[in-house]
Amino acid sequence: MSDGLPAPVLIVGSGLLGTSLGLALRRHGVEVLLSDRVPEHVRTASGLGAGHAYAGEVVGLVVVAVPPDHVGAEVARALAETDALVTDVGSVKTAPLRELDDVAGIERYAGGHPMAGSERSGPLAASPTLFDGRPWAVTPHERSSPAATAAVEELARLAGAGVVRLSPEEHDTAVARISHLPHLLSVLVAGRLADAPQDHLALSGQGVRDVTRVAGGDPALWQQIVTGNAAAVSGLLTQVRDQLDLLIDAVTTGDRGSLGAILERGVAGTRAIPGKHGGPLRPSASVFVSVPDHPGELARLFADAGASEVNIEDVRIDHDPARETGLVELLVDETRADHLHTALGERGWETHR
Amino acid sequence: MSDGLPAPVLIVGSGLLGTSLGLALRRHGVEVLLSDRVPEHVRTASGLGAGHAYAGEVVGLVVVAVPPDHVGAEVARALAETDALVTDVGSVKTAPLRELDDVAGIERYAGGHPMAGSERSGPLAASPTLFDGRPWAVTPHERSSPAATAAVEELARLAGAGVVRLSPEEHDTAVARISHLPHLLSVLVAGRLADAPQDHLALSGQGVRDVTRVAGGDPALWQQIVTGNAAAVSGLLTQVRDQLDLLIDAVTTGDRGSLGAILERGVAGTRAIPGKHGGPLRPSASVFVSVPDHPGELARLFADAGASEVNIEDVRIDHDPARETGLVELLVDETRADHLHTALGERGWETHR
Repeated sequence: MSDGLPAPVLIVGSGLLGTSLGLALRRHGVEVLLSDRVPEHVRTASGLGAGHAYAGEVVGLVVVAVPPDHVGAEVARALAETDALVTDVGSVKTAPLRELDDVAGIERYAGGHPMAGSERSGPLAASPTLFDGRPWAVTPHERSSPAATAAVEELARLAGAGVVRLSPEEHDTAVARISHLPHLLSVLVAGRLADAPQDHLALSGQGVRDVTRVAGGDPALWQQIVTGNAAAVSGLLTQVRDQLDLLIDAVTTGDRGSLGAILERGVAGTRAIPGKHGGPLRPSASVFVSVPDHPGELARLFADAGASEVNIEDVRIDHDPARETGLVELLVDETRADHLHTALGERGWETHR
Repeated sequence: MSDGLPAPVLIVGSGLLGTSLGLALRRHGVEVLLSDRVPEHVRTASGLGAGHAYAGEVVGLVVVAVPPDHVGAEVARALAETDALVTDVGSVKTAPLRELDDVAGIERYAGGHPMAGSERSGPLAASPTLFDGRPWAVTPHERSSPAATAAVEELARLAGAGVVRLSPEEHDTAVARISHLPHLLSVLVAGRLADAPQDHLALSGQGVRDVTRVAGGDPALWQQIVTGNAAAVSGLLTQVRDQLDLLIDAVTTGDRGSLGAILERGVAGTRAIPGKHGGPLRPSASVFVSVPDHPGELARLFADAGASEVNIEDVRIDHDPARETGLVELLVDETRADHLHTALGERGWETHR
C-alpha cells in the first residue's frame, strides 16, 4: 500500500492501459476497482489480477482510461459523480480540456499520458511492466489543484514510470512530433507493403520491421488520436511533404549533395532522442587499452571486458603506425570505468584512464 | 571446414559486413583472407579474429564487401586478377552489373545481398551473428555459372542466413520497397526531431525509437545505395507523396473515413511481412481452456502455460454469459499444441484442442 496515493483507485476502462495500470498498482498492494462499458473486459482484467469489479464504492482517485473521443465526457462524469481526484491516460490533452471548461470541480482534475502502448489492444495484451522506465507526461491545467497534480505524479511513479511535467498545449505539440508523426509515416511505409509480391517481402529484415511495427496499432484508436490533435499533426505533415519533395528531386536528378543533407539531418534527429527510458543520457568515460596487432587479440580483449560485466557503449581504435600495436578506447558508463580499468589490468592488459 | 565452399575465401573490404562475414565463416573453420583500401581496417578485423591479411594467395572465392559505388569495379578486378568465383554483398544489384557487361569471366560472378546491417559501421561494429536467421538474396544474372550461384548459396548458409533467390532486377524492386523506402521515411521522421525542444523529446517512447533507428545509418553509404537504385526508389517516393497528400487532407478536414482507410492499409502492410527471420510463418494451432471467472484465475493459467515452456503467440477469450466461466483460446506453434494441452490438463485445467 502506498502512503501518497488516494485510494481506492477506480480505473474507468479495462483495455490495454487500464488493465496494465491495475496490474502495476496491485504490485504495490493498492486497492484497484475496475469498470468498463463492456462487462467482459472487467471480468478478463479481474481474472488477470488487475483489481475487482467496481460496485459504487467511495474512491480516492479515478483514472479515466477510455478511447480519446470519450475522455472529456468520462472525466466530467467522474467529477460529477464522485468527490475523488481525477486523471486520465489519453494521448491528447487540450481537446478534452475544452469540453471541461465550465464543469464544477475541475480543480480536482489533472491530466496524464504514459508514453507506453502496444500494437495489440484489449485487456489480454496488458502487462504489469508496460510503464516500467517509460516517460509519463503529467499535464496539469491552469486550475488543477496541487493535490490533483501530486496524485498523478505518485500514480506514475507507482506504475514504474518517470514523470515529465508539461502544460497540456506543450504536451500536444510534443506528441505530434515524437508519436503521431512517426506513427503516420510508419503507416505510409507499411501501406506500400500491402500488395507487394511474397518473394519480395521475404527479404524483409529488422529495419522494415522496426519502421513499421507501430503501424499495426488499432486504426479506430489512432483515428481519434490524430483528429484530436489535428492542427499540430497537419503542420508537421506539411513540413514532411516539403522535405519529401526535396528528396524526390534529389533522387531523381542524382543530386548527392541535397540527398546527403537530408540524410545527415536524419542522423542528427536520432542523436537528439535522449537515452533509453527517456531519461537523460548517463555520462560516459573512457578506458584506453594497448592491444598488440596480432590476429585474435582484440577478440581476447572484448572477451575479457565482457567477463568484467561492464557494458561497452562504444569503441574507438587507433593504430600506432610506429609500433605493432593499437590503442583501443572503450567507452563505458562513468560509474563503471574504474572497475573496468582494474579488471583489465588484472588480466594483464596495459590500460590507462 | 566446409565441403561445399571454394576456399580460401578472400573478403575485399573489412568493414561491418566483411568483418562480420569473416567472423561467421571462421566459426566453421573456413580459411579467410582479408583486404581493404585502409590497412588499419584489416588489422582491426584480423585482431577480432575475422581472418588473416591477404598477401596474394590463390583463392577459391572472392567476396566483394565494399561501398556500392565501387562494387562493379572491384568485381571486375577480382575476375581479372584471379580465377576464383566472385560474389558481392552490395545493396543494389543491377547498377554494378551494367558496368560488368563486357568483362571476361563474367560467368564466374553471381551477386548476393545479406539483409543485415547496423546503424554503426566499420570493423569494430562487426559480429559473427550478424547474418543469423536473416534473408540473403542470391541474385545470379543470365550468364552466371551454376557453380558461382551454388557458391553464393553455400556462403549464405555458412553465415547462418536463409537463401532467397531473385533476379537482379526483382531484387532491386524488392529492396526499394522493403529497405530503401523505409530508410528514407525514417530519415524524414528523424529530421523533424533535430531541433525539437529537449523537454518535448523527453517524452520519446519505444515507438519513435523504432521508427527512427535506421535513420542513424551512415549517410555516405545510403547516398550510394539510394542513387544506385534511383528509378525504383523515386517511383515509390512518388506513391508515398500521393498518399501523404490524401493524409494531410483527411487530417485537416477531420475526414475520419479517409484517415481510417489509410490506417487500415498500414495494418494490412504490417501483416504482409512474413514471420520473424524472413522465413514463412509457422502454422499455429489452438488449445482451448475453460477458466472460472474469479479474480486471478487467468493469471494462474498464464503462469501454468509459461511453466510448460510453450510460447503463447496469441490469446482470445470468450465469456459464456450462461455460466460463470470463460473460454480461453491459446494460439501456439502447431508442433507444441499437444504438449501444452497435456501440460495444462496435468495441472487441473479443463482443456480441449
